[in-house]
Amino acid sequence: MRASRFFISTLKEAPSDAEIVSHQLMMRAGMIKRQGSGIYTYMPVGLRVIRKVEAIIREEMDKAGAIETLMPVVQPAELWQETGRWDKMGPELMRVKDRHGRDYAIQPTSEEVVTDVVRTELKSYRQLPINFYQIQTKFRDERRPRFGVMRGREFTMKDAYSFDRDVEGMQKSYQIMFEAYQKIFTRFGLQFRAVAADNGAIGGTGSHEFHVIASTGEDALVYCPTSDYAANMEAAEALPLIQARAAATESLVKTPTPGKTKCEDVAQMLGLPLARTVKAIALTVEKEEEGKVAKENWLLLLRGDHELNEVKVSKVPGLSSFRFASEAEIVEAYGTLPGYLGPINTKQPVRIVADRTVANMADFVCGANEADYHYTGANWGRDLAEPMAVADLRNVVEGDASPDGKGVLAIERGIEVGHVFQLGTAYSAAMNATFLDENGKPAPLQMGCYGIGVTRILGAAIEQNFDDKGIIWPQSIAPFELVLCPMGYDRSELVKEQTDSLYAQLQALGVDVILDDRGLRPGSMFADWELIGVPHRIVIGERGLKEGNLEYQGRRDEAATAVPAADMAGFIKDKLGR
Amino acid sequence: MRASRFFISTLKEAPSDAEIVSHQLMMRAGMIKRQGSGIYTYMPVGLRVIRKVEAIIREEMDKAGAIETLMPVVQPAELWQETGRWDKMGPELMRVKDRHGRDYAIQPTSEEVVTDVVRTELKSYRQLPINFYQIQTKFRDERRPRFGVMRGREFTMKDAYSFDRDVEGMQKSYQIMFEAYQKIFTRFGLQFRAVAADNGAIGGTGSHEFHVIASTGEDALVYCPTSDYAANMEAAEALPLIQARAAATESLVKTPTPGKTKCEDVAQMLGLPLARTVKAIALTVEKEEEGKVAKENWLLLLRGDHELNEVKVSKVPGLSSFRFASEAEIVEAYGTLPGYLGPINTKQPVRIVADRTVANMADFVCGANEADYHYTGANWGRDLAEPMAVADLRNVVEGDASPDGKGVLAIERGIEVGHVFQLGTAYSAAMNATFLDENGKPAPLQMGCYGIGVTRILGAAIEQNFDDKGIIWPQSIAPFELVLCPMGYDRSELVKEQTDSLYAQLQALGVDVILDDRGLRPGSMFADWELIGVPHRIVIGERGLKEGNLEYQGRRDEAATAVPAADMAGFIKDKLGR
Repeated sequence: MRASRFFISTLKEAPSDAEIVSHQLMMRAGMIKRQGSGIYTYMPVGLRVIRKVEAIIREEMDKAGAIETLMPVVQPAELWQETGRWDKMGPELMRVKDRHGRDYAIQPTSEEVVTDVVRTELKSYRQLPINFYQIQTKFRDERRPRFGVMRGREFTMKDAYSFDRDVEGMQKSYQIMFEAYQKIFTRFGLQFRAVAADNGAIGGTGSHEFHVIASTGEDALVYCPTSDYAANMEAAEALPLIQARAAATESLVKTPTPGKTKCEDVAQMLGLPLARTVKAIALTVEKEEEGKVAKENWLLLLRGDHELNEVKVSKVPGLSSFRFASEAEIVEAYGTLPGYLGPINTKQPVRIVADRTVANMADFVCGANEADYHYTGANWGRDLAEPMAVADLRNVVEGDASPDGKGVLAIERGIEVGHVFQLGTAYSAAMNATFLDENGKPAPLQMGCYGIGVTRILGAAIEQNFDDKGIIWPQSIAPFELVLCPMGYDRSELVKEQTDSLYAQLQALGVDVILDDRGLRPGSMFADWELIGVPHRIVIGERGLKEGNLEYQGRRDEAATAVPAADMAGFIKDKLGR
Repeated sequence: MRASRFFISTLKEAPSDAEIVSHQLMMRAGMIKRQGSGIYTYMPVGLRVIRKVEAIIREEMDKAGAIETLMPVVQPAELWQETGRWDKMGPELMRVKDRHGRDYAIQPTSEEVVTDVVRTELKSYRQLPINFYQIQTKFRDERRPRFGVMRGREFTMKDAYSFDRDVEGMQKSYQIMFEAYQKIFTRFGLQFRAVAADNGAIGGTGSHEFHVIASTGEDALVYCPTSDYAANMEAAEALPLIQARAAATESLVKTPTPGKTKCEDVAQMLGLPLARTVKAIALTVEKEEEGKVAKENWLLLLRGDHELNEVKVSKVPGLSSFRFASEAEIVEAYGTLPGYLGPINTKQPVRIVADRTVANMADFVCGANEADYHYTGANWGRDLAEPMAVADLRNVVEGDASPDGKGVLAIERGIEVGHVFQLGTAYSAAMNATFLDENGKPAPLQMGCYGIGVTRILGAAIEQNFDDKGIIWPQSIAPFELVLCPMGYDRSELVKEQTDSLYAQLQALGVDVILDDRGLRPGSMFADWELIGVPHRIVIGERGLKEGNLEYQGRRDEAATAVPAADMAGFIKDKLGR
């Protein structure tokens, strides 16, 4: 490609609405143009990266036996009503009416359509397993689109859907996709981590997220450096930090703690370690019984230095639809304002759930349900009844024991770019998607689904790979692998000749090369390609040529390397692994 | 590809809603699955054809200097309001509101978005000309979707948009695209014809349609076999069939023609040639003047054997918003019912437009504005005033003189699959898209737009290429180029060995080959591939192998050809031009 026939439009400054590095750099490099909130045109530089990402995904999906299809963007509401997602999904699902007033969804994913395809087209167990995928435009009407392609509304996603005759088959299909994802992210040249995840609203029996590691990532990833254990923060299991409860050594004392509403402040005032304090979080659960709404008071107890994990809370029996109690509800149930809540002497009966660690604490400090007072020396069984339930309620922290017993946990930040799910029969049962088994009897299909956020990869790759000059693309997904920067292409016959000859040689080697024939001054030319992030650069100048040399510089290299002009093609062949 | 790892789902019978051959065959070959009215999932066989069509388009667009982008499917209404198309387009434009109640269009084309991109990103005349294209999902909420992909609602279109500094540049860009389209359709292996077309509602100064020739086509294409002249029926100019008006030889006679309301019947009753009769078509034009709607009566005169061309009518000055008169309006203006209308003795004043041929007729027959009567011997200037206007109002017919004077016209049927337009400044002026010229002054961009209906190509190719066994794909866009049909792949070691070896050889030659290892009986296997339309087939059987032979058969061949097994790869290499 010659730059004069391509479209390059770089900016010195990013627009002010670009808050994160990847968004800023994508705008500055002319990869995207904003058309509306969370809606972008992919400009030529950006689209080249997308196409390379898509090509790698497509190759690995094909190798893994998945079969490509293309499902409609505009999907009849009837299918979404069959699974109930038409009602469940809320405003994130973009809805549209046609000229006859019929309802449609703009696809955020395609579980319903693919299940409809399979229930119509697939007849026999002999056709199983099968896995259909597509790379197609998706839309999610995010409440607050931001960060460019990281949280856009319209985006490109690869979504695959496997269908099997039984759970064992589904798990095998899942494993094949899991391995394909590892190959894909490895080929992208990105540092990534697969972590166990919660299935969440989509249901089913197991799931993993694939994250690109980046210090700016929104998600905390928990892993054990000395074992295979890895999970996202929502799903990472926290073991009790105290193995057995010690005997009580103190008596319960109501102690004045005026104005100290936080565990940190109480501990400091009392001269006790934070790990001796317990914080209490009040929840409300509303239950409809015989047409009346009854409210239940629940109290969660967490060690003062720990953080609540809401996903774990929602899995405690009875708490699947919890909400945090309002101030009025707290006063009604505990007789005090938040900040002095505790499990002892509540005004109304309260269901107490203790975190695993709290359940084994002795002589602990907790709120006294009275303003400006805490208890010290609180002990289970003596000062309050044993908790109704003990559960893992907290986020893990660095240094916690790994749940697999093989080391301690570390935490890093990641950007979610892929997600694989074991769905089981959640969709096939709702949509009556069955196959005929060997005995000619209909049986429900076991399903898996597997997504990769294609356009999001661009943002994630940049968050992981940039410097103060711009983007640093991994070679496999760079918009161009190599740029030729001739000094005076229009002026020097020698430079032009050498450049054209090298350009032809590199093209013959299959290198994705761009020749910058725009006639810019060297400074602007280099700045453009450093910003755009092309990983390899060759400068062709008269000065070097007088000594028979060209200059090579990798995007991460501190300085250029002189390479004899005659050897350059071979040098690049080795560098790029051709 | 091995068939066992692919998804093939053929049907003996097409569903009853499939009215035309291409729709029936696409359904039977398992290329598409209907998800709703005019909305399809593209199944693996269908998607392979789409991808080949797209690849050819992409290559030729790139060669022609167009640059690929990807514009959003969901586009902010504000852009569409700037050009007025938000109001003008009516229900065909699918509209959607987001969670905040903001309006969006689902793109049917992208003139607005690309013009917005260019007005933001492009600054100087030095960046011109530029041509951006995309291959993207489109949606048009057709009143009556039908014929499968031929008139779907959701479809894939390649749309390109050129921007130039002046009209001459625009015409050059247009010519480049025109030539690229010729290469594209040639590479598709389809018989096609480019015809001059009317610009229609999109505006601008010139346009051509590209049609795939098929006897089942919806459109009539007019061309001159002895010259380059070609136009669609709407745009094909009809010259007067009579060069000069003869002198009157008859007197005007009111003749009874009881019950004869058609020119054919009147001519037969009077024993005159049909070409002596004139039919009259009453129009109404409503004009708003000072808040009141005033009606104008217009009467079009056409020779009895000619057909009205409504596009031509709409171009007659004063008739841009004509409609056909209602029966009540006809009675009011002419005092009679349709069937006996004529230009003489109308009840109210009438504006008469004569077709070029009618204007030169003498002694003609026309309605007498009285039930059961016609006039014979009518003559211009004597029996009625000269017409207010003379215009080309009719469709051409086979044998008419070509407007270029180089022969006579022929007519064939076609399916429109591409359209190129010179838009001029219609969009750039509305959206204030300018560039800075050499003097630093803003000037409006001259624009062209260029579409190809990607998914429609599939239907059009089939309408042109099928037989009673199924589809016959041109090699370049076939889902597979060649199928290997082993007889007893599971049973015969010899067959398996020969098949696998040939499969490997053909893959090494770059042949897109599918190996049918499904274990079907020969009859079903052959029927599937004939239906799907793979252009080349090789049968590997023990019987042939005993004599060292394999069987080759082209999809259009009457019978198979025995080819020595050792020569087959070379034979195919030649056949496929590798």
